[in-house]
Amino acid sequence: MIEIEVKTPSREALVNVTGLLEAALPELGLVDGLLHVYSPHTTAGVLIQEGADPMVAHDLLLRLRELFPHGHPGYRHLEGNADAHLKTAVVGNAVLVPVAGGRLKLGTWQQVFLAEFDGPRRRRLWLSQVDGR
Amino acid sequence: MIEIEVKTPSREALVNVTGLLEAALPELGLVDGLLHVYSPHTTAGVLIQEGADPMVAHDLLLRLRELFPHGHPGYRHLEGNADAHLKTAVVGNAVLVPVAGGRLKLGTWQQVFLAEFDGPRRRRLWLSQVDGR
Amino acid sequence: MIEIEVKTPSREALVNVTGLLEAALPELGLVDGLLHVYSPHTTAGVLIQEGADPMVAHDLLLRLRELFPHGHPGYRHLEGNADAHLKTAVVGNAVLVPVAGGRLKLGTWQQVFLAEFDGPRRRRLWLSQVDGR
Repeated sequence: MIEIEVKTPSREALVNVTGLLEAALPELGLVDGLLHVYSPHTTAGVLIQEGADPMVAHDLLLRLRELFPHGHPGYRHLEGNADAHLKTAVVGNAVLVPVAGGRLKLGTWQQVFLAEFDGPRRRRLWLSQVDGR
Repeated sequence: MIEIEVKTPSREALVNVTGLLEAALPELGLVDGLLHVYSPHTTAGVLIQEGADPMVAHDLLLRLRELFPHGHPGYRHLEGNADAHLKTAVVGNAVLVPVAGGRLKLGTWQQVFLAEFDGPRRRRLWLSQVDGR
Repeated sequence: MIEIEVKTPSREALVNVTGLLEAALPELGLVDGLLHVYSPHTTAGVLIQEGADPMVAHDLLLRLRELFPHGHPGYRHLEGNADAHLKTAVVGNAVLVPVAGGRLKLGTWQQVFLAEFDGPRRRRLWLSQVDGR
């Protein structure tokens, strides 16, 4: 397993980490198999979505903000970031991606994103090689 | 890894692919381990849910339509299918299922579905053998 | 694969199963690799979230109840638990966690929870060793 660091720019952002992941494959020794990308955080997740049009990220963050409002009167978590925990729970904190010939095997429009919901921060991702074919 | 094709019947549908997955296990050479089922699309995901009563699929699609409306005034993605991207992000684009004795090991009521949110289309699923026990 | 049993206390609850998972690693023979935690149920999932403050679980269950109301007039599933199926679909039914040196490798604040949405019940989790590093 190796750890990479990702700086996030704002309270909420989808940060495209696809290039960072591809760059880490040689260090992992991963040529064929699957890559596990794991966020060890509880207010930042990982997801795979459209990379060509950044407006998809905008629309996702917009709607999640509406569905999980920052200042919900019923929240009891005291740090004021309950909304960030809830968005992370819904988006998920890890993905598993096929790797072939030393490259991530993503769909044409897919990219891997760190989903920041309580930044800006320095975040970490844990990358593991998973055996398979 | 092998690729299978799935035709979806309408803009939104949960298509039960459990039989297709089981039929692909011999070609994958997968007897014991885990099966990774990956959608390379950004407007169609994969999930595991109740298979006995198709009304569960109806209810899920109904409520996701209400929570991620097709014509939200804030959306900026120009293709008019932002809602499909958002639903896919929430449902997820892959599952990992135990396999034992050449059969998928699902719970009694579980089936695997391709979740179409922007069809009808020909979709693909990427199936990988993952080593484990 | 081994199966563990989890008793849930109420209709909805996040039950911290981290200790049960760690206790099962020796029986699985899992020292280094990844642990797959799979719920074979369609109204109970698995997720990784904040473990230090139980109010995060409260806030998540509260908001999911509001977004997926129990008595939605459009639901057609006859058993009256459509909401539980929908919450499970959104939260997910499995997680994959790195294991190193015979211990789960979780983030500082992360714990693994069985997410019960239609209890109280005896639930099962299927634990598999996944090969990787």
